[in-house]
Amino acid sequence: MVEHLLIALVVLLVAAKLGGALAERFGQPAVLGELLAGVAVGALPLLGMGQLVFLGTDPVVDALADLGVILLLFEVGLSTRLADLMKVGWSAFLVATVGVIVPMILGALVGAWLLPTAPGYVHVFLGATLSATSVGITARVLQDMGKVRTPEGQIVLGAAVIDDVMGLLVLAVMVGLAGGSGTSTGLTAVIVTVKALVFIGGSLVLGRLLAPRLFALTARLRGRGVVFTAALVTAFVLALAAHLAGLAPIVGAFAAGLVLEGVPFGELLPEGESLEKLLIPLSSLLVPIFFVRMGLRVDLPGLAGGSLLLAAGLTVAAIVGKQACGLGVVNRGVDRIAVGLGMIPRGEVGLIFAGMGLDMKFGGKPVLGPGEFAAVVAMVMVTTLVTPPLLRWRMTRGDPISADGHPRGAPTTSV
Amino acid sequence: MVEHLLIALVVLLVAAKLGGALAERFGQPAVLGELLAGVAVGALPLLGMGQLVFLGTDPVVDALADLGVILLLFEVGLSTRLADLMKVGWSAFLVATVGVIVPMILGALVGAWLLPTAPGYVHVFLGATLSATSVGITARVLQDMGKVRTPEGQIVLGAAVIDDVMGLLVLAVMVGLAGGSGTSTGLTAVIVTVKALVFIGGSLVLGRLLAPRLFALTARLRGRGVVFTAALVTAFVLALAAHLAGLAPIVGAFAAGLVLEGVPFGELLPEGESLEKLLIPLSSLLVPIFFVRMGLRVDLPGLAGGSLLLAAGLTVAAIVGKQACGLGVVNRGVDRIAVGLGMIPRGEVGLIFAGMGLDMKFGGKPVLGPGEFAAVVAMVMVTTLVTPPLLRWRMTRGDPISADGHPRGAPTTSV
Repeated sequence: MVEHLLIALVVLLVAAKLGGALAERFGQPAVLGELLAGVAVGALPLLGMGQLVFLGTDPVVDALADLGVILLLFEVGLSTRLADLMKVGWSAFLVATVGVIVPMILGALVGAWLLPTAPGYVHVFLGATLSATSVGITARVLQDMGKVRTPEGQIVLGAAVIDDVMGLLVLAVMVGLAGGSGTSTGLTAVIVTVKALVFIGGSLVLGRLLAPRLFALTARLRGRGVVFTAALVTAFVLALAAHLAGLAPIVGAFAAGLVLEGVPFGELLPEGESLEKLLIPLSSLLVPIFFVRMGLRVDLPGLAGGSLLLAAGLTVAAIVGKQACGLGVVNRGVDRIAVGLGMIPRGEVGLIFAGMGLDMKFGGKPVLGPGEFAAVVAMVMVTTLVTPPLLRWRMTRGDPISADGHPRGAPTTSV
Repeated sequence: MVEHLLIALVVLLVAAKLGGALAERFGQPAVLGELLAGVAVGALPLLGMGQLVFLGTDPVVDALADLGVILLLFEVGLSTRLADLMKVGWSAFLVATVGVIVPMILGALVGAWLLPTAPGYVHVFLGATLSATSVGITARVLQDMGKVRTPEGQIVLGAAVIDDVMGLLVLAVMVGLAGGSGTSTGLTAVIVTVKALVFIGGSLVLGRLLAPRLFALTARLRGRGVVFTAALVTAFVLALAAHLAGLAPIVGAFAAGLVLEGVPFGELLPEGESLEKLLIPLSSLLVPIFFVRMGLRVDLPGLAGGSLLLAAGLTVAAIVGKQACGLGVVNRGVDRIAVGLGMIPRGEVGLIFAGMGLDMKFGGKPVLGPGEFAAVVAMVMVTTLVTPPLLRWRMTRGDPISADGHPRGAPTTSV
């Protein structure tokens, strides 16, 4: 419906730009302002402005937001060199592993302490909701600061991809344990892991072999925007493949960015153009819609019904648990604290876990009640909101600060 | 649902670019290839590939297509000077008037001839389905050829806006006549016209007064893409306002392009950027989706059930009727045939009319049966498909042809 579409675009874009501008005025990352603008827009129906309530559930808004985060990770993948990522491979693997295990243990302990009458499975399940990092926020902050290609940035990005595979594993195991069959749990876990690894390995190896040839063929087609469209189609195809392999679509979009490293866009595009430059108008439109929508989904009345103590406990476990990640860094000269901060945000995966907990039964009772669910939502919200300022503070340490409060080295490609 | 979104984007974009490239290979406009690619994709479910059947009804595909045509008319509005449009104002008005009246008369005669037992109202209603030009196709062909700013292009664009207002009037009168109350019909017609004229006059006068100030304020906001986003928001706001005034959203998007004429984007955007250049990646992605979707909506089995004779009669009336438009041109040195060809395409408005005819009753019977409806759909399809090659043929007459078969003067801003 064209009316809803236009209202949604106007409200989301104005909220994003005002929120972003306000945040930057206070020396904060734009993404923090976009998130808070989303929370504000989401609260308008509570103040009687019910006309906008459709924004939270509109499939078109969801689609635009999904496209936004896919484009963001595609851009981040484009500015990443596979060789650089390989150099920090061990660090990324260890960071991911520590970052899944430690928060799970801390979360389970918090659960055992605050919900002493619940079965042990519920405690472990609560811990599992803390396992997976959501890389969107960190990717955006790194990109806005021009820090994607720092070793810290590369470690966090690599760890986030590995972390996503591990999250799948944890999910398979939790579902299997609730069902109660040990053999099928083990089998499911193996299948899930193999599928994910085949996708990542296959897309990178095959993609890097095929991409230059496919693009050389594509460039021979006539028409407006053929090469640019082919690059976007690559991102969409790999995002779809990742989704079908059970991974997050953004992992596929990031892989697409890595795959296109070998394509000589300088020769294929008209003089003076670059793929990165062509993506800016698209992403400056769609990426903020993703973050405003993320803020929009914060359910303030739902939060009020949660256990404040459980929410606080889980949040502390989530933040402290990921700080252990720094210990996994084996490369020299890397700021371990920045890596730990970059791993803090939880997102979709944590919410998916929590949502499943509402539906799943263990011993005849739901694994999570609405209060526990709200506590997980609060944890996701706080970890999302604290990361941009913390990461910006840590990563601008020692950077010369320009007169307007912007760190030097920030991207010059604003429009 | 992210899976449907990604499948839709990949299928639509690949179909658009292959269809466009193939059409250009045969010296035809890309948009013809995109339309036919859409017809082909729409026929896949008939061949047993039912997985893609969602494309025809998916709200997200609709939203992306709607955005595409809004962006197209916004771009066309940006490359139009209000002063140039005023210079051809009388011609545009007369072209629009002739182009509504003559096809209506011819269509009613065709109806009286082929459906002699139907009441006179049905004949007039069939004529009314031929009245409104759909400017999307012509705008796209003009833009691809770099001919938006020719007098012929300006007359067709101006006439299309006026034509849209007249289409509303015709619609109000037809609905009123079916209801049977003369007074309320007259009143509705007056209200509809006043609303439409207030929108067009108001948005142009107010918009051109306010836009430079609003953009000067906007440019002081920090953040990525603020000025670019503000330009898009202007287009969306005026498209929404047009829709609320009962007009097509694309009329508002075109008006937004005219309104922004007075904004000094050269000063507000970074060195080397222009609004037109920033829009290219967005429009090269979304505009083809609109035309592929238009092709997708061609209901081949439905067409087969229609009266071939009625379809042919209406199509001839539709094409011949608009050729009378050339007589309305009062400016000198204008190619009247090109103007007449540019007015041929019928689209949404004709289909909306026909759809209403299915639902409305006159004398206890539906105004149009499924066979008549299918004949109108066939008319829309044929007028859409014949225009690009005819217009390209007529408007490249006398142009020097370059070695690769492309007319000189075609836009150089391909990506």
